[in-house]
Amino acid sequence: MKIDLNCDLGEGFGVWQMGDDAAMMQIATSVNIACGFHAGDPDIMHATVKLAKQNGVAIGAHPGFRDLHGFGRRPVPGITAAEIENLVAYQIGALQAVAALAGHKVTHVKAHGALSNVACEDDMTARAIASAIKAVDPSLVFVVLANSKLMLAGEAAGLPLAHEVFADRAYEDDGNLVSRKKPGAVLHDPNEIAERVLRMAQDGAVVSVTGKVIKMRTDTVCIHGDTKGAVEIARGVRRKLEASGITVAPFAGT
Amino acid sequence: MKIDLNCDLGEGFGVWQMGDDAAMMQIATSVNIACGFHAGDPDIMHATVKLAKQNGVAIGAHPGFRDLHGFGRRPVPGITAAEIENLVAYQIGALQAVAALAGHKVTHVKAHGALSNVACEDDMTARAIASAIKAVDPSLVFVVLANSKLMLAGEAAGLPLAHEVFADRAYEDDGNLVSRKKPGAVLHDPNEIAERVLRMAQDGAVVSVTGKVIKMRTDTVCIHGDTKGAVEIARGVRRKLEASGITVAPFAGT
Amino acid sequence: MKIDLNCDLGEGFGVWQMGDDAAMMQIATSVNIACGFHAGDPDIMHATVKLAKQNGVAIGAHPGFRDLHGFGRRPVPGITAAEIENLVAYQIGALQAVAALAGHKVTHVKAHGALSNVACEDDMTARAIASAIKAVDPSLVFVVLANSKLMLAGEAAGLPLAHEVFADRAYEDDGNLVSRKKPGAVLHDPNEIAERVLRMAQDGAVVSVTGKVIKMRTDTVCIHGDTKGAVEIARGVRRKLEASGITVAPFAGT
Amino acid sequence: MKIDLNCDLGEGFGVWQMGDDAAMMQIATSVNIACGFHAGDPDIMHATVKLAKQNGVAIGAHPGFRDLHGFGRRPVPGITAAEIENLVAYQIGALQAVAALAGHKVTHVKAHGALSNVACEDDMTARAIASAIKAVDPSLVFVVLANSKLMLAGEAAGLPLAHEVFADRAYEDDGNLVSRKKPGAVLHDPNEIAERVLRMAQDGAVVSVTGKVIKMRTDTVCIHGDTKGAVEIARGVRRKLEASGITVAPFAGT
Repeated sequence: MKIDLNCDLGEGFGVWQMGDDAAMMQIATSVNIACGFHAGDPDIMHATVKLAKQNGVAIGAHPGFRDLHGFGRRPVPGITAAEIENLVAYQIGALQAVAALAGHKVTHVKAHGALSNVACEDDMTARAIASAIKAVDPSLVFVVLANSKLMLAGEAAGLPLAHEVFADRAYEDDGNLVSRKKPGAVLHDPNEIAERVLRMAQDGAVVSVTGKVIKMRTDTVCIHGDTKGAVEIARGVRRKLEASGITVAPFAGT
Repeated sequence: MKIDLNCDLGEGFGVWQMGDDAAMMQIATSVNIACGFHAGDPDIMHATVKLAKQNGVAIGAHPGFRDLHGFGRRPVPGITAAEIENLVAYQIGALQAVAALAGHKVTHVKAHGALSNVACEDDMTARAIASAIKAVDPSLVFVVLANSKLMLAGEAAGLPLAHEVFADRAYEDDGNLVSRKKPGAVLHDPNEIAERVLRMAQDGAVVSVTGKVIKMRTDTVCIHGDTKGAVEIARGVRRKLEASGITVAPFAGT
Repeated sequence: MKIDLNCDLGEGFGVWQMGDDAAMMQIATSVNIACGFHAGDPDIMHATVKLAKQNGVAIGAHPGFRDLHGFGRRPVPGITAAEIENLVAYQIGALQAVAALAGHKVTHVKAHGALSNVACEDDMTARAIASAIKAVDPSLVFVVLANSKLMLAGEAAGLPLAHEVFADRAYEDDGNLVSRKKPGAVLHDPNEIAERVLRMAQDGAVVSVTGKVIKMRTDTVCIHGDTKGAVEIARGVRRKLEASGITVAPFAGT
Repeated sequence: MKIDLNCDLGEGFGVWQMGDDAAMMQIATSVNIACGFHAGDPDIMHATVKLAKQNGVAIGAHPGFRDLHGFGRRPVPGITAAEIENLVAYQIGALQAVAALAGHKVTHVKAHGALSNVACEDDMTARAIASAIKAVDPSLVFVVLANSKLMLAGEAAGLPLAHEVFADRAYEDDGNLVSRKKPGAVLHDPNEIAERVLRMAQDGAVVSVTGKVIKMRTDTVCIHGDTKGAVEIARGVRRKLEASGITVAPFAGT
């Protein structure tokens, strides 16, 4: 049994930093690297790639909308499919080249923030992302929220997929995430989160808010490192998995 | 006999345009495409690549300093070799991916503005650019000012080179460009410019301000399209070359 | 009888230009100057203010969303009232100071692009803009689309208002603009536009698409200068007004 | 006896933060607020102004070069005096308006980073800054490094000046700061720094690296808050001053 832990890293800009990248590099097995549109710059990208290489961690592009000020968390009304293809391709290519410079190789892509949120529910956006990935390199693994439009678009494009679940988010009975506007949408108890991830890895299932067991393909679990508490939770998840005999390793190698 | 005409294109940003790209695509045989740091964005890059493909024109990355406001014309004091490598690699990769999306392929790199000017005289900068190109794709042709530090760095890196001369710039006896601060540094007479380029193509030589004939390897001639007058001059150059039996074609195919 | 002609100017950025500012300065009597968020920079602002002063033209701030790449034409989902207040105040203040440096004075404010479009229909946005203007300088004239939420917010805030109509846009029977998605939304015939503006100035009325005469307070007419055709239309409007004995002068002086 | 402690604050951008603004607001008596060019945005500016008002702290504009990526620490080669005037005026005005919105008032200006460093040694730059301040509001106090070109430019412009010394920097015998390239340029011992500042406040003098006592007018002492250690040092300085009967209060009131 094997699972991947993925984390967003390299999310600073210029002098500004975000999260504890050094700590997360020792916990995650795949990292999604910001490519300069919502965060990140060539120097941070290079440093993050290099750190990943040193730690044997797989790297992916983490393209977002052009929105440094809003960290890519705001949708861009009226953006076209062609514009999404262009900005996704641009960002993947930028990271590929920086990775080549640092002696590593981009093996996956995961959309960031509002680009991802919109794409999970909007066909056009999801297909545009998949189309850009396919044009740049059809062997790139596309990290998709299980059961989302992103997953469908990835399947339609024939891309290799990594199905993602969230360690710290509650699920509805239909397999969708509980909206962040509802109480209980985000889990905070480290033990509960670790137990939950173990179950995902062992059983390929999550337990919904009503207690229903939902089968869900799980190739990778999204973990966070943007607060001190988050790092501790992530560390607990990894320890629990390893203590239970689960292999924690990049999906990209499969 | 054969020569390439290269031109900087795709130098708008968002709603802003610069120059007459459509006209220059019918004159130039290689175009250097801005990659988003001093000008250009993913949409403009895609449109420019597509137009180049339609016109059978070769494309190259035209990386510059991060300076939209100053169009990359200002040096960046204190920037390190590693930072230059990172930003050059980033921009090349971004264009490669956008080109893949548009069904074309990047075959050369030419540095822009202050990045190029600094590199022509500074070893460290020149080597950093060459090093980034080599890491990303050692088959990319590096466009270099004949006799500059850029040329030396390209040779040292073992990159394929295209030696560039300027259609409308006067040369000193030692083969360097006459400083723009001196009178006569820039030529304006269309016939004189066309004659000059023809001579470069036929004889591999430029005539200096004192009348001295300087042998100079000439793979490509830099032409401009940012004013109406510039487009006319460029058109005259191409007509003259063709009327004299010179083949005007991309260097990248050689 | 008197009317103002207002125009958006200073909409370049760095080396990029937009429209023919010099020509429009001789036609418009009030200009709305971009303040650096969707277009404009301190140097362009200064040059535009100076040109306005030389031409005896009144100046206003033209604040927009932070969106250089999209020229402020895209709404910003989820932006709060406080954030709108902050960015409007920031931009007004920036222009006030640059105007002081150039020896002129900001006398009005007109929202740009998506900020204006959203505010015309959304109370919260409209009130935030009015609130920012009032805090910065309650004597600033607020240019508002007649009958819009902007007008209501300006009235509620007690700001001096200038009611604006469009020279080249068709109106519905209820006084709203015909949506740009419908045919006939934008007028193109120079004579028709000039006649229309004359009627606005003489009768304080526009004729709707069905021929209905709609009374509408008209302090200022919005004209455009972003194409050669637009400049000609604007020039025709001014000539027509003057030939008919209407005084064309800034509203801000009243 | 009275002295001011000034600190740079509001140096985040969007989601990114820098330093512990809340802690420094309880130690500093004047704060220099980033205005969006090297750091800061309208929301952070508003929050910082509001916090200053709540703490009875005086506020000043902290204009820098347009360089978010480099935090304004890189000189801009070739920038003209007019361009510097424009960007300084722009930033002061922006903060004035945001301060009006938050019910506070800008009472001083201090140049940031490379803009300040260049101006300390370059007449043209120093005069451009002073000229912009004077045009915007000649009652603004200009914070200047004692004995620098900035001081001379401020005097020549007739601006009210606040002479600044550094709590943690060593001085040469001639009153200039020891270059950061030399060992011992920056002091780290909290007690030594506190003693030093007390002496400045009591005697109007600093002791140079060779032990020489240099008379130096001291209206304000620059303190830092960008690391945990820096906050502790600043707190120690304030405690020492108060324990010794020195009034710690804004210079702007004098």
